[in-house]
Amino acid sequence: MKTFRIFVLATLAAGFSAGASAQFAKPEDAIKYRKNALFVMQQHFARVGAMASGRAPFDATAAAENAAIAESMARLPWAAFGPGTDTGDTKAKPEIWKEQARFKELAEKMQAEMGKLAAAAKTGNLDSVKSAVQATSGSCKACHDDYRAK
Amino acid sequence: MKTFRIFVLATLAAGFSAGASAQFAKPEDAIKYRKNALFVMQQHFARVGAMASGRAPFDATAAAENAAIAESMARLPWAAFGPGTDTGDTKAKPEIWKEQARFKELAEKMQAEMGKLAAAAKTGNLDSVKSAVQATSGSCKACHDDYRAK
Repeated sequence: MKTFRIFVLATLAAGFSAGASAQFAKPEDAIKYRKNALFVMQQHFARVGAMASGRAPFDATAAAENAAIAESMARLPWAAFGPGTDTGDTKAKPEIWKEQARFKELAEKMQAEMGKLAAAAKTGNLDSVKSAVQATSGSCKACHDDYRAK
Repeated sequence: MKTFRIFVLATLAAGFSAGASAQFAKPEDAIKYRKNALFVMQQHFARVGAMASGRAPFDATAAAENAAIAESMARLPWAAFGPGTDTGDTKAKPEIWKEQARFKELAEKMQAEMGKLAAAAKTGNLDSVKSAVQATSGSCKACHDDYRAK
């Protein structure tokens, strides 16, 4: 668990909430929490994604707002991947707890890309948003490919 | 976390929700979104509640951080109570859509109390936190009593 502790400390240092690292009452709560936070994040990200792909008209204000919420939500799930949360109603693969350094790296990569997306959306430039959506989407996929069961 | 709060506050300063009122792909997504956002909020609120009731030791920093996240999360669910989201996997009572002004009032009351809790938690004064937790909890209950099925 040392790696996980280091992960939590590192995320704290990076601005991640100390409060979010507090214990969950039950492993099921942690699992539900991370799934819920990721779903809320995904919903906001998807709105920007729809604009980037042309499925929705580009609305710079809405893009900036949704990207900023997605960026904030992206910080929440990780504290909920603690010990004992590898089984239950989850698609999280056991590899997460065996390869914590790499999982942490991918989680941080996603957060960084989501941050770049929020910054791009703030500029109101659709081309920047498109590139950032693609990079962010790739960072989601990279982690899902290895650490989420189909 | 600070960015989260500032952003959400700015986004929703105009009222019930500007960006967040963007469409959900399906009514089920809206229902899932509001439940998920409320669960994430509740988890952070519960950590402060546990400190207020003495079930957990008072940690002023953690209390402030969790209260701030709960305050931000409290702003998200309401845009997901749109038309067509009254049926499905939800405990939301049909009265919500018949008494929208009152529902909105109760939702805003909860957000206001959560804001006061976040402010109280920032001061680091446990007695203030206790009072604010009680008031916030009451505002949750007021809405659940009338608008959430048992």
